[in-house]
Amino acid sequence: MKHTLHKQAQQWVLEAGRLIKEKMDEPLEIMTKSSPKDLVTKMDKAVESFFLEKIRENYPSHKVLGEEGIGEAVSETKGTVWIIDPIDGTMNFVHQKTNFAISIGIVHDGIAEIGVIYNVMEDTLYHAKRGEGAYKDDVKLPMLPEKTIDQSIIELNHFWLCPNRRVNEEKLQKLIYRAMGTRAYGSAALELAFLAEGITDAYLTFSLQPWDYAGGFVLLHEVGGKLTDATGEPVDFLNRTTIVAANSSIHKELIEEYIELK
Amino acid sequence: MKHTLHKQAQQWVLEAGRLIKEKMDEPLEIMTKSSPKDLVTKMDKAVESFFLEKIRENYPSHKVLGEEGIGEAVSETKGTVWIIDPIDGTMNFVHQKTNFAISIGIVHDGIAEIGVIYNVMEDTLYHAKRGEGAYKDDVKLPMLPEKTIDQSIIELNHFWLCPNRRVNEEKLQKLIYRAMGTRAYGSAALELAFLAEGITDAYLTFSLQPWDYAGGFVLLHEVGGKLTDATGEPVDFLNRTTIVAANSSIHKELIEEYIELK
Repeated sequence: MKHTLHKQAQQWVLEAGRLIKEKMDEPLEIMTKSSPKDLVTKMDKAVESFFLEKIRENYPSHKVLGEEGIGEAVSETKGTVWIIDPIDGTMNFVHQKTNFAISIGIVHDGIAEIGVIYNVMEDTLYHAKRGEGAYKDDVKLPMLPEKTIDQSIIELNHFWLCPNRRVNEEKLQKLIYRAMGTRAYGSAALELAFLAEGITDAYLTFSLQPWDYAGGFVLLHEVGGKLTDATGEPVDFLNRTTIVAANSSIHKELIEEYIELK
Repeated sequence: MKHTLHKQAQQWVLEAGRLIKEKMDEPLEIMTKSSPKDLVTKMDKAVESFFLEKIRENYPSHKVLGEEGIGEAVSETKGTVWIIDPIDGTMNFVHQKTNFAISIGIVHDGIAEIGVIYNVMEDTLYHAKRGEGAYKDDVKLPMLPEKTIDQSIIELNHFWLCPNRRVNEEKLQKLIYRAMGTRAYGSAALELAFLAEGITDAYLTFSLQPWDYAGGFVLLHEVGGKLTDATGEPVDFLNRTTIVAANSSIHKELIEEYIELK
């Protein structure tokens, strides 16, 4: 069953990617949600509908938790839950027409079993099944090597270095001085995929939804990385949360030395 | 002559790119320069030598200004000067094995005439001749559309939002609140190429060398963008400088409202 679901998720993700690419040049009908920076397009909704229909038809007992909320309300992770971001990095999608992803995590009885992240325009498919390793297309990703913070590239939205409601920016500024480098790509799913690939070493954010991290969670876990909330507690795949995702060798130090929540 | 140089620069850049890809998996012999974060590899030096030899053989009267300094000392831009970054984004090259570029700007009697930026692993060639438009591979890049800062994606190293010697970080933090989004890719040449492509709208930095911006200058100029130092004055292609590169419609406001040098 897990094997079938893993293949099925990959197949649908590729199909959805083709749909997006075909319609890429049509007018986007951009709307905003919670704020002017929180964009959503007709495409986000169309892609979520695509998955919802496929899943209802093929796995009627499964639940669907998606960014656009057109599935049912999901309040527990009992049974099988598909956690879907139809277009992760909507600002990139709208503004850059690249650097966005489809992200799927499949959680069964609270355990994240399958992760699929598709970098649509690069045509790169990251995928993982719990206990069986993570892959970039057909290439198995190696376990992450040991690192120190000085040797690490940290992914972080610039916003968290400015005075904000959620985290002490001054402690994070100290991390910036110490880390080897910092990056910001504008898609949580891709930042997690890059982390699993080992091209970055940590991704910190202080407000993220389950569909942004569920797929990346499995990928990262399979290469020996660690994803928790910013206090080190496990994430629940249901609620908005803080996130510290990192190479395991720096995860604890990041939380203890550089993160002070408000 | 300008046409020949433009073709020649592209040809050599592609050839150098092939050399890099062939040797990509050999041990890198990483050294540090001014600081532990300022990396250089044997490859940087080899690629600069490659260009130096080609130019000396084919254009013995031209001067070469390069990151690794193995050309002659160049103290003026009279005549023809090739300004070369053999590997821009060395940290990405070492750590990510992607997201780095070869950058070439050719300046004649102080005027930047030709710009070539090669995104090596993506195999994307950005190129421009002054007065004749900018291209991504064979596709002519459109002129940049009018933008407001609220609609803009700003490229910025996170470091400038932390207390530092060169710029008032608090004013930049205000920019972060106002802009639509922020990105950091770790290669000045690529950040300028993305800006010329219109997938970002500004790139700010407060310490950059001529080889980091000379190629991007021409690209950006050809799509109607503007690159100056952080006071709005022209850059000289010879010395380390601050840089505000942006869509022309926001360039002045960025400098006047958000940048206060120390």
